[in-house]
Amino acid sequence: MPSPSFPLLAIDWGTSSLRGARIAADGQVLEQRGFARGILSVPASGFEAVLDECFGDWRAQSARCLVSGMAGSRQGWTEAPYCPCPAGFAELAAQLAWVPGARSPVAIVPGLSMDQGGLPDVMRGEEVQIFGAMQLGGQSEGLFVLPGTHSKWAQAAAGRVTGFRSFMTGEVYALLSQHSILARTLNAEAPFDEAAFVQGVARARDAGGLLHHAFGARALTLFGQLDADRMASYLSGLVIGAELQGAAPRPDAPVVLIGSELLSARYALALEVHGVASRRLGAEATWAGLHALARTLD
Amino acid sequence: MPSPSFPLLAIDWGTSSLRGARIAADGQVLEQRGFARGILSVPASGFEAVLDECFGDWRAQSARCLVSGMAGSRQGWTEAPYCPCPAGFAELAAQLAWVPGARSPVAIVPGLSMDQGGLPDVMRGEEVQIFGAMQLGGQSEGLFVLPGTHSKWAQAAAGRVTGFRSFMTGEVYALLSQHSILARTLNAEAPFDEAAFVQGVARARDAGGLLHHAFGARALTLFGQLDADRMASYLSGLVIGAELQGAAPRPDAPVVLIGSELLSARYALALEVHGVASRRLGAEATWAGLHALARTLD
Repeated sequence: MPSPSFPLLAIDWGTSSLRGARIAADGQVLEQRGFARGILSVPASGFEAVLDECFGDWRAQSARCLVSGMAGSRQGWTEAPYCPCPAGFAELAAQLAWVPGARSPVAIVPGLSMDQGGLPDVMRGEEVQIFGAMQLGGQSEGLFVLPGTHSKWAQAAAGRVTGFRSFMTGEVYALLSQHSILARTLNAEAPFDEAAFVQGVARARDAGGLLHHAFGARALTLFGQLDADRMASYLSGLVIGAELQGAAPRPDAPVVLIGSELLSARYALALEVHGVASRRLGAEATWAGLHALARTLD
Repeated sequence: MPSPSFPLLAIDWGTSSLRGARIAADGQVLEQRGFARGILSVPASGFEAVLDECFGDWRAQSARCLVSGMAGSRQGWTEAPYCPCPAGFAELAAQLAWVPGARSPVAIVPGLSMDQGGLPDVMRGEEVQIFGAMQLGGQSEGLFVLPGTHSKWAQAAAGRVTGFRSFMTGEVYALLSQHSILARTLNAEAPFDEAAFVQGVARARDAGGLLHHAFGARALTLFGQLDADRMASYLSGLVIGAELQGAAPRPDAPVVLIGSELLSARYALALEVHGVASRRLGAEATWAGLHALARTLD
């Protein structure tokens, strides 16, 4: 017996990873797969081949494929526009970028852009997670935080993203932990140390800023006050703490965290240090967002 | 005719460079040399050999050799102590670490340490520059800023360093400009662009912090508002600006900058954006400090 067809192949194609799900008409996520095939590993003309290699079987059975994330960037498959904020779900749906010449229909979701006093900001992929989270939570406003290489803090009101800010947190953590002087006394294999992490977050609240506190981690090491097993967690707390200093969340405004369980747990802990409550969502937000967009095409 | 002997071979041996001067009894700097032979390039038992390779002729003519900088660290030649702040010139002179078994007398100058509410900070080499600058300027108090890989802001009063703070500024700039996503759109060969630098310093004064502003540099690029030729200067302004945000200098307290001409000029410009006056000193501060220390040995 042939397996029943299902309407949507949902794809989240980021810089360093490729994830997909096949989704039933009612939104149920039937199956998921993930690959280390981010857009940086794909040659310019190789996107359709990689998609088929990873999801060809599912694609053959689905009416359409919706893709969010960096696959819509200039270095991606097909460039999708940025919808300027404030932007709602309708604007996203109206500006899907259909991939020309694809073997079966593939559309790429636009990103969002932001202008704050002449200074731009951008996101690609997170907008789908935010609208998905709003769907799942039955919520039309709030503060959404998406931790990652380039974390996003987005404000929503009346079902629209009214503004957002990005932070180079994950990337700076990777640089400091792998390539700075701190790397010499950092055991990247050590298990997460909650106390050291919270200590880092608390330190980030003091005057001086990240550049001062990062050197301070070195000085702690020199005086035997911070060992290599705790350094990674402490530094993670310093950098995520610096993001929180910049984002300045308010204790009376709870936050929705969307991201990997591991990273969201750290952010929840850091937000707790700031007295800010949070709840967490994972990949389900992505799939809910892409499913909702697909429904607008019926 | 043999050249006349002179009393001091003064050496500043840092992480990435080795500089030396021969100095007359009256403090006059007779000659200087510099090499890319920082302590990281020297094997543990190779310090005396490298010193002789670079300065053997001068050493043969001098009564003694005084060394400041990272040569006194655990990874250096002979570990010198840290003098805890507040510390004066006398404490430095009293705790010189004589290199055991050296062919002719070599002493390494101690560093300074600092304890701020249980959090340590350290310097090695800058203390000699600060005391040298005080000598040269006939000044016993003030705010001294030493730009570099790990910049130092030191406060002096009554001829003593009362406290200081370090910032990982140069190192973070190098990481961001060489290894972050910004490196892709940064022309490291482009000449310094003063306007872009000042723009970066000004941006660093806005809310959000370095992690946000660094991503903002990426967004400016995406929208064609920042080209590769201006990126290096803009980023330099952002990072030095972040240091200034952390150090929070006061407009009524002028600063003495000690360091390379190129870097000091940038800091002077950044301080100007903050309304802070500055004057600049270079290597002469190092030589004046080492000469003053040598005189205490007579």
